[in-house]
Amino acid sequence: MKTKQLNSQKCAAVIVAAGRGTRMGPNVDKLFLEVSGRPVVAHTWQRFEQAECIDEIVLVVREGMQTAFAELAAQFQFRKKIQLVAGGQERQDSVWNGLQALGTDVGIVAIQDGARPCTTPALIEATIRAATEMGAAVAAQRVSDTIKESDGGALIQRNVDRARLWAVQTPQTFRVGVIRRALVAVRERGVLVTDDTAACELIGQPVKLIESTAPNPKVTVPADLAYVELLLRNL
Amino acid sequence: MKTKQLNSQKCAAVIVAAGRGTRMGPNVDKLFLEVSGRPVVAHTWQRFEQAECIDEIVLVVREGMQTAFAELAAQFQFRKKIQLVAGGQERQDSVWNGLQALGTDVGIVAIQDGARPCTTPALIEATIRAATEMGAAVAAQRVSDTIKESDGGALIQRNVDRARLWAVQTPQTFRVGVIRRALVAVRERGVLVTDDTAACELIGQPVKLIESTAPNPKVTVPADLAYVELLLRNL
Repeated sequence: MKTKQLNSQKCAAVIVAAGRGTRMGPNVDKLFLEVSGRPVVAHTWQRFEQAECIDEIVLVVREGMQTAFAELAAQFQFRKKIQLVAGGQERQDSVWNGLQALGTDVGIVAIQDGARPCTTPALIEATIRAATEMGAAVAAQRVSDTIKESDGGALIQRNVDRARLWAVQTPQTFRVGVIRRALVAVRERGVLVTDDTAACELIGQPVKLIESTAPNPKVTVPADLAYVELLLRNL
Repeated sequence: MKTKQLNSQKCAAVIVAAGRGTRMGPNVDKLFLEVSGRPVVAHTWQRFEQAECIDEIVLVVREGMQTAFAELAAQFQFRKKIQLVAGGQERQDSVWNGLQALGTDVGIVAIQDGARPCTTPALIEATIRAATEMGAAVAAQRVSDTIKESDGGALIQRNVDRARLWAVQTPQTFRVGVIRRALVAVRERGVLVTDDTAACELIGQPVKLIESTAPNPKVTVPADLAYVELLLRNL
C-alpha cells in the first residue's frame, strides 16, 4: 500500500543544503565532495527523487549556489519539481525559508539534511506515514553504546541509562501546519533549537520515533566519506 | 617518552573474548569472523602485541576454546607472554577471572573487548598514562548525535543535552588494586554493571575520559564488519 493512497495531500521534501560545515577544513563544501561518482548532496537528492511518496522538492541553498544546484538537476536528470530557496543564518531559519516556498496543496513535509546521503526511500515513507497520523515523526536509531555523563571536564560523573536514548537523524517529517506553528513559536521566543523536533516540544506536539534499520549517517568529518561510500555501494 | 619509563610496574592487557554475542545470528562466533584476512579477535590481539607499553596479555575465552586461541598465537606469531583463562557467566565475571591470573608484579591492567579490533596502540598508551596517574581511565568518544529520551515507547519525551555525554569504549584501564576493589564491591552487592568504570562508581573511584581520536567500533552486527575492514585498511 502506497503512502499516497493514505494521504490525499501532496508531500514535499525540504533538503537543507545551506550549511558549509566547519569540520571538513577551510573552504571545503562537504555537500559537493564526490563520493561514488557524484557529490554528496546529489545522492541525498536522488533518495527523494526515488521515493514515490515525494511529489516535489525544495532545496535550501547558500546564496549564489542556485546555478550549481540547477546544474546538478540537469546532470543527474532529476525529474521531480524543484524549487531553489536561499538559506538563512541558522539551520532553523533555512528550514523556515524552505517552508515558505511550499504551495498550499502540500500537507506533509519531510525535512532532510543535505549531508545525509544514505537515507532510504522506505525510511522516508515510514516517517511520512507516521507524520500523517501523528503530526510529527523522526528517523532515529537506538543508542547502543554505553553512555556516561562527564562532570563538564574529563571525569565521569555518572552512568546514563541508555534504554530510553535515541540518536535522531533525518528525515524529520511533519504535517505542514504543525512545523509552521512550531517554528513560529521558536521565532517568537527567539530561541535556538537543535533540530525541528525540539521545536515541536515548544508547542507540546508529540513526535514519533521511527527506527532506522539501515545506517543513515551524516557526513561531518573526512573519515565519514569512506564509510558513506561503502554504504552507498550496497544501496 | 615511553609509558614504561613512567611506571616501573608491569602493564597487562585482559582481552575479554568469552562472549558469543547474539546479534550476528545463531551459532556465529563473531570473534572468529574473518576481516582483512584474519579473525576479528586476532586483530584486537595484534593491537596489544604492537603496543610497547603492554608486557603481557591475558585472554579470557569460553571453556573449550583454549586450543583455538593457542593456534591463533602460533599462526600470527604473537610473541608476548599470554595466559588463557576461562570466562564466567557475565562479562564482569570474565574480567574477574582475568584479573585473578595477573602476577603480583603487574601494576596496571587494560581491559579490552575482544570484538573491538581497531583500538590503536596510542590510545592504549594514553589510557595507561591516565590510569597510572588517576587510578582509572577509559577510552571514549563525545556523543555527536542529537539525543532524545523516549517515553519508554516510541514517542520523544525530552531533548537530552549532549554536551556532557560520552560513549565509552575500551580499553578501560586501571591500577590493579583499584579494579580489584571495585569488582569486589560489585560481587559483594550482587549487582550487574554495564562496564568496568561503573564498578568504579561503586567505590567512589574517579575515572578519566580519554578521547579516542580515531573510530574504535565494536563488532556487533553483520554490517559492522565491512566498516571495520575499511578502518583496518587505514591502520
